[in-house]
Amino acid sequence: MDHDQDCPGLLPEPPAAELKLVCVLHALADPMRLRIVAELAGAGGDELNCLAFELPVTKSTMTHHFRVLREAGVIRQHRRGTSKMNTLRTEDLAARFPGLLEAVLAALPHCPRDAHATPAAGLETNC
Amino acid sequence: MDHDQDCPGLLPEPPAAELKLVCVLHALADPMRLRIVAELAGAGGDELNCLAFELPVTKSTMTHHFRVLREAGVIRQHRRGTSKMNTLRTEDLAARFPGLLEAVLAALPHCPRDAHATPAAGLETNC
Repeated sequence: MDHDQDCPGLLPEPPAAELKLVCVLHALADPMRLRIVAELAGAGGDELNCLAFELPVTKSTMTHHFRVLREAGVIRQHRRGTSKMNTLRTEDLAARFPGLLEAVLAALPHCPRDAHATPAAGLETNC
Repeated sequence: MDHDQDCPGLLPEPPAAELKLVCVLHALADPMRLRIVAELAGAGGDELNCLAFELPVTKSTMTHHFRVLREAGVIRQHRRGTSKMNTLRTEDLAARFPGLLEAVLAALPHCPRDAHATPAAGLETNC
């Protein structure tokens, strides 16, 4: 679970072979977490600092969302100084659940970085 | 929302064009609901009676799971006499979220109808 010895600064995460479908679906089943995933996907593999996500939630709620995504295996987090850097675990997800992340990303509305004031269409909180 | 006038016995459901990704993901993010979806997919479009699902949960919990799936638009439910009959909304889901249901079903372990005593591998409740 903890790869710190191999990669200093890496926060604990499940190995690719142990990702669980229920946990990944749960992690994705939230509009804020979907926005994080969409922004990371749009970064094309680049790491994004948590502070780059201008979500309309408190810092502690944002920390919670990133932790849910990391513990489910959707994202990878590294500490860099006082920052946490994030990437999507695209290859691990594709290997374990082929087509799932692509289908979710394709279903998301366009989510521009400068449109944080209102939720993107289709990302309503309530069912 | 309510198609009863068009189709007597149909329980209320969201129209295909109004299915929400977050709600569908939430509905799928549960091991019992995934088993229901897997069994319905295995039925090849045939209707299945709620009573045909021998899940290790109480009747009220089972009713809850079916309702969550129906209200998210994952399944369709008809009353037939005192029974509720269920089908997957495969075409509606494919039209709104192409590839999503297929990816989820492909990620599921084989879930035989006679293996209800223990959860199928990969369908653990805890993340």
